[in-house]
Amino acid sequence: MDFEQRVRDSFARQTFMSTIGATLARVAEGEVEIELPFREDLLQQSGTLHAAVLAAIADSACGYAALTRMPEGSEVLSVELKVNLLEPAIGERFVARARVVRSGRTLSVCAADVFGDGKLVATMLATMIRR
Amino acid sequence: MDFEQRVRDSFARQTFMSTIGATLARVAEGEVEIELPFREDLLQQSGTLHAAVLAAIADSACGYAALTRMPEGSEVLSVELKVNLLEPAIGERFVARARVVRSGRTLSVCAADVFGDGKLVATMLATMIRR
Amino acid sequence: MDFEQRVRDSFARQTFMSTIGATLARVAEGEVEIELPFREDLLQQSGTLHAAVLAAIADSACGYAALTRMPEGSEVLSVELKVNLLEPAIGERFVARARVVRSGRTLSVCAADVFGDGKLVATMLATMIRR
Amino acid sequence: MDFEQRVRDSFARQTFMSTIGATLARVAEGEVEIELPFREDLLQQSGTLHAAVLAAIADSACGYAALTRMPEGSEVLSVELKVNLLEPAIGERFVARARVVRSGRTLSVCAADVFGDGKLVATMLATMIRR
Repeated sequence: MDFEQRVRDSFARQTFMSTIGATLARVAEGEVEIELPFREDLLQQSGTLHAAVLAAIADSACGYAALTRMPEGSEVLSVELKVNLLEPAIGERFVARARVVRSGRTLSVCAADVFGDGKLVATMLATMIRR
Repeated sequence: MDFEQRVRDSFARQTFMSTIGATLARVAEGEVEIELPFREDLLQQSGTLHAAVLAAIADSACGYAALTRMPEGSEVLSVELKVNLLEPAIGERFVARARVVRSGRTLSVCAADVFGDGKLVATMLATMIRR
Repeated sequence: MDFEQRVRDSFARQTFMSTIGATLARVAEGEVEIELPFREDLLQQSGTLHAAVLAAIADSACGYAALTRMPEGSEVLSVELKVNLLEPAIGERFVARARVVRSGRTLSVCAADVFGDGKLVATMLATMIRR
Repeated sequence: MDFEQRVRDSFARQTFMSTIGATLARVAEGEVEIELPFREDLLQQSGTLHAAVLAAIADSACGYAALTRMPEGSEVLSVELKVNLLEPAIGERFVARARVVRSGRTLSVCAADVFGDGKLVATMLATMIRR
């Protein structure tokens, strides 16, 4: 099974991504994009997307970017993630764009940027583990 | 208005916390707890709570812990957060317990632990800003 | 060989700790303290200890705290570390106090606080790996 | 005074960078590079450069990258930093290359990569504050 299919299968098993309305926009080797339309039920008190919603799509994009480099049968889990919130998360359409920074046998390090209508609103650095 | 009321008012303006079913369990000076019952629509592909759901309740608890130490009229925003996922997030009832580590005029640093049925499953270190 | 001896042997092989004048102050199971006297050649431009010097003793203390829980023959390496600088690092004597938050077969998560003359100046959350 | 001179003046006030033998290699608007030759007294127990030495040059490069975008008279301090160690830090010559990701009135977010003889060995995401 090719890596794109493996990513799409795993994404389909995630209930949380569909709960928030996120979809897989692009899967390439070492790079994954997840899209999220703005929704009124995903906000923090300031009226912008909740920081954790940005973290959610960035984290999932990081995990799947890592998964594209792992052997068939692998499962990916987040070890840790760190996200900086750069601008108020305003916009109609959000995209988390992740790439593998370093892919090892056990651990992978990934980075992701999150854009709101094309403007950078958050950036993540995360560590993933293969199971 | 006392700090507990300010936290409860702000929490009520967050749509994302109610979307995932999280509630404010405890508000004390410098300490906030947020509870979340397990739900089938908050899972990652491994069948456990999505890492970002744990991050969501920990981040909100950190922000509100910081808010209890801020002057009336303040708004709190996340600058950055880092979370380590320690164990599979299994359980019926999750609690994020946050405390202020250092409270400054502009920035606050907070730590949070997330428990699933009493077992530590994640830990966060985060920076909050007053607006 | 007991864990304290293993930590002391490993510490003695680190040239950087002695370059900055740091010493092992305490080794217990899951907890390690490293001490550092103030020195004029370890400063950042603000005249306080360089952030990375605080990170250095906190990181080493975290690694050795993790090592106390690992089987004989293990080597510990930092996967990643995150440190918040809380106060100007002023004082005569600095202590980094680390503890294991979660110890796994491959990865350990540790936390450390750094004190300057007893006052909390920095806090770390770090991930260690066994080799 | 232009930004390059301000960075060079501030760097010259840092005693720690000269203690470890680091030098300013390049200063451009929003980008700073710091170089460090390998030295036997900067090692961790594994015989590679200590993680905190990589963090030191990455952190300083991040701070100075942020300073290039700040008004004259500003001082820069690290709020927090997170670094992932990607490969054993082996090599004769290390370079930390930092860039500003987002520059605000108070806070700046910077990223840095550290290379050992041209190979990526560590990556940092950090938050800086203007004083």
